[in-house]
Amino acid sequence: MNILTLNCGSSSVKYQLYNWLTKTILSRGVVERVGQDGSFIQHYVLNQGTEEILFSCPSHKDAIEQISRLILGADQGVLSEVKKIDVVGHRVVHGGEKFAQSVVITPEALQTFRILADLAPLHNPPNITGIEAAQAVLPDIPHCAIMDTAWHQTMPASSYMYALPYEWYEKYGIRRYGFHGSSFLYVAKRAAVLLKKDPMDVNLICLHIGNGSSINAVKKGLSYDTSLGFTPLEGLVMGTRAGDHDPAIGFYIMQKENRSAREMETILNKKSGVLGISGDKTDRRDIIQAAAEGDSRSQLAIDLEGYRLKKYIGAYYASLGQVDAIVFTAGVGERSSIHRAKALEGLEDLGIILDPEKNELSRTSNAETLISADHSRVKVFVIPTDEELVMTEDAYALLQGSYDIHSKFRYSFQDPAYVNAQRAEALEEELQKKPALKGILA
Amino acid sequence: MNILTLNCGSSSVKYQLYNWLTKTILSRGVVERVGQDGSFIQHYVLNQGTEEILFSCPSHKDAIEQISRLILGADQGVLSEVKKIDVVGHRVVHGGEKFAQSVVITPEALQTFRILADLAPLHNPPNITGIEAAQAVLPDIPHCAIMDTAWHQTMPASSYMYALPYEWYEKYGIRRYGFHGSSFLYVAKRAAVLLKKDPMDVNLICLHIGNGSSINAVKKGLSYDTSLGFTPLEGLVMGTRAGDHDPAIGFYIMQKENRSAREMETILNKKSGVLGISGDKTDRRDIIQAAAEGDSRSQLAIDLEGYRLKKYIGAYYASLGQVDAIVFTAGVGERSSIHRAKALEGLEDLGIILDPEKNELSRTSNAETLISADHSRVKVFVIPTDEELVMTEDAYALLQGSYDIHSKFRYSFQDPAYVNAQRAEALEEELQKKPALKGILA
Repeated sequence: MNILTLNCGSSSVKYQLYNWLTKTILSRGVVERVGQDGSFIQHYVLNQGTEEILFSCPSHKDAIEQISRLILGADQGVLSEVKKIDVVGHRVVHGGEKFAQSVVITPEALQTFRILADLAPLHNPPNITGIEAAQAVLPDIPHCAIMDTAWHQTMPASSYMYALPYEWYEKYGIRRYGFHGSSFLYVAKRAAVLLKKDPMDVNLICLHIGNGSSINAVKKGLSYDTSLGFTPLEGLVMGTRAGDHDPAIGFYIMQKENRSAREMETILNKKSGVLGISGDKTDRRDIIQAAAEGDSRSQLAIDLEGYRLKKYIGAYYASLGQVDAIVFTAGVGERSSIHRAKALEGLEDLGIILDPEKNELSRTSNAETLISADHSRVKVFVIPTDEELVMTEDAYALLQGSYDIHSKFRYSFQDPAYVNAQRAEALEEELQKKPALKGILA
Repeated sequence: MNILTLNCGSSSVKYQLYNWLTKTILSRGVVERVGQDGSFIQHYVLNQGTEEILFSCPSHKDAIEQISRLILGADQGVLSEVKKIDVVGHRVVHGGEKFAQSVVITPEALQTFRILADLAPLHNPPNITGIEAAQAVLPDIPHCAIMDTAWHQTMPASSYMYALPYEWYEKYGIRRYGFHGSSFLYVAKRAAVLLKKDPMDVNLICLHIGNGSSINAVKKGLSYDTSLGFTPLEGLVMGTRAGDHDPAIGFYIMQKENRSAREMETILNKKSGVLGISGDKTDRRDIIQAAAEGDSRSQLAIDLEGYRLKKYIGAYYASLGQVDAIVFTAGVGERSSIHRAKALEGLEDLGIILDPEKNELSRTSNAETLISADHSRVKVFVIPTDEELVMTEDAYALLQGSYDIHSKFRYSFQDPAYVNAQRAEALEEELQKKPALKGILA
């Protein structure tokens, strides 16, 4: 049983091929520069490593054909002739209010994604193109949609409504949707395992901090509030996105600089955030280094991002009333001890006490670690995320007919004995170099 | 010694005449519908009550001339011939980064307000018109400016900077300014008195909830963060203002409905907030009544406003690390037990425990009350604000040459024995009808 997952962006296609029986990633990779000059594919194969192949790729269909050739090719494909791909799971960013869980893609579902493309003009169109291309290349198997917004459909109206003209909600569906759902689902379920609690009985604050970032208040196992909103612009300070700011500013700049609404969207999404403050950097490693070398705007970028994280932790602490654990995940969340320390500085009165040494040690995407002090009432975990595994399991269960909404479903990674074999192997190597890491494994 | 304070809005002028020696408000009132048909003045005189006079009022100058006639008129004016107005204190909404404290208005200061009018197009132009008109009518006395933004100039960069292109800050001064400064100054100083602590040694979360609302984190007596931003649009749910929302929404609506930036500003400032959600109400008393009668959108307006308040309390709790007291003020903050209860619901883990009976009892603008439970680690006060008194004292001290920035200045209302005589009198009457109120006086 082989499951292919696809994540189609505007100019890229990420993929992963997973074998259900052996629980291994047979292959994964990314096609970059789709529709542009110089397109190429980075293709990893189990036990063979990664190669990079330049090829002409004018469309998403070409990208998916290339992926399919590399996976299914009779001679040197990952899968031999008789084996095949059984099901495809597609990441779809925006499911609107229609979908609270993953689905098999019917013509009706696809039509709904097309209607929702208006809500997510940067994300849904490439997702739809990817589905259509993959259906053409792999026509005889089910294709499933796993939506970033589905996880957040449990939010109450007081979390998802804005204090805007009510008819905007009725006419245009203007409300908070939230994103990063598969990531939050994964880390919330894993946190329940680490806490040895029922997944529907945990209160968590989960921070997905990467180039795009969001934070999720989880109440009794369900998404209760989140920082990304109608679009992925709201909330935390991100790599290039502004997050929260006085919405009057955009209109002020429009009038000052005679700019269009579209131009403003581009500036606020692509030229703001850490990039806007620092002037030339989005990668937090570059920011940290520049700040250490005395660059005051890079230091300001760290301070702003850390302070915004802290305020959201406080806000969601108040939302939840009681918190079992704080969970950091995604690139920056898993690896930047500096951002984590800033986010949790001075929260002792909230019962949140970071252990500075444990925090410093935990900079890996191969292990789950516990970085709070022993006497911290609220536990602080770092849990590397695995969105592809959520997509894989949803697609598999939909194929098998065993799928249900997450609150009534049990994922393989909810087994206390669950181990990600490939990460465990990488961790072994890491422990050779850094044995102290062993002391903070969760 | 008589001090006149003026607060000029776009179509109104509020005024108060205060006698320094007797510590009494000799007169106060408001001119409504300046520059419109049907203008009138509501004019209160000590020991004489309030009268309403219709008069033609095409400009702010006419309004101020009318106020001046009623106060100084030789026959039936409030002040006799020989007495006079000694100084005028003008409320100025936006002082930008130039002013961290009140000033005597020089031609240079007035020129700065004109430049800043671009930052506060709804507020500073009428303030400036009011200053010019008052200087023409009362030419031989000092005029002072008390700015809403001055109190917040102590915020650190991590509070006042946005994650936007840095050059917007350099070129246009785009940053968080905050407003309601005189109100926060007043209640923060009063809270220190009630806590019996040095005013520079208190950590507070102050909520000014009226038609416009904002919240202020006060750290060691200084403003540390606040919810209103570059303009008075950001932050809490307000009567007609949206407060926080995904800034991409405005650009989406512009493109959907072919609207201009100016139209969007109007909708977000005048047609949103509690009005936007309910459809037809801004007064929270109407909202509460309609919700009690089963109107679901009014209930949603209360839920949204309360939940936003709660999230900000959590956020600022995290900012401050440790909190001595939460302070409610302004119309809704002083009188709506429902909004206060919503804002503080479920915050026991933060050491904030409301006493429901005390909360219910406290619905007055005549007394300072303590409404937290005895075992609440954080005290919860209701402190009726008095912005006019701050303006009056600043103007008086500027006249006398004894003025200094608030951190080095002592206001009369910081005296533990301070009593507002007129409120005390009104409270006596209230206590006759509601003796239980006595038990919660702070």
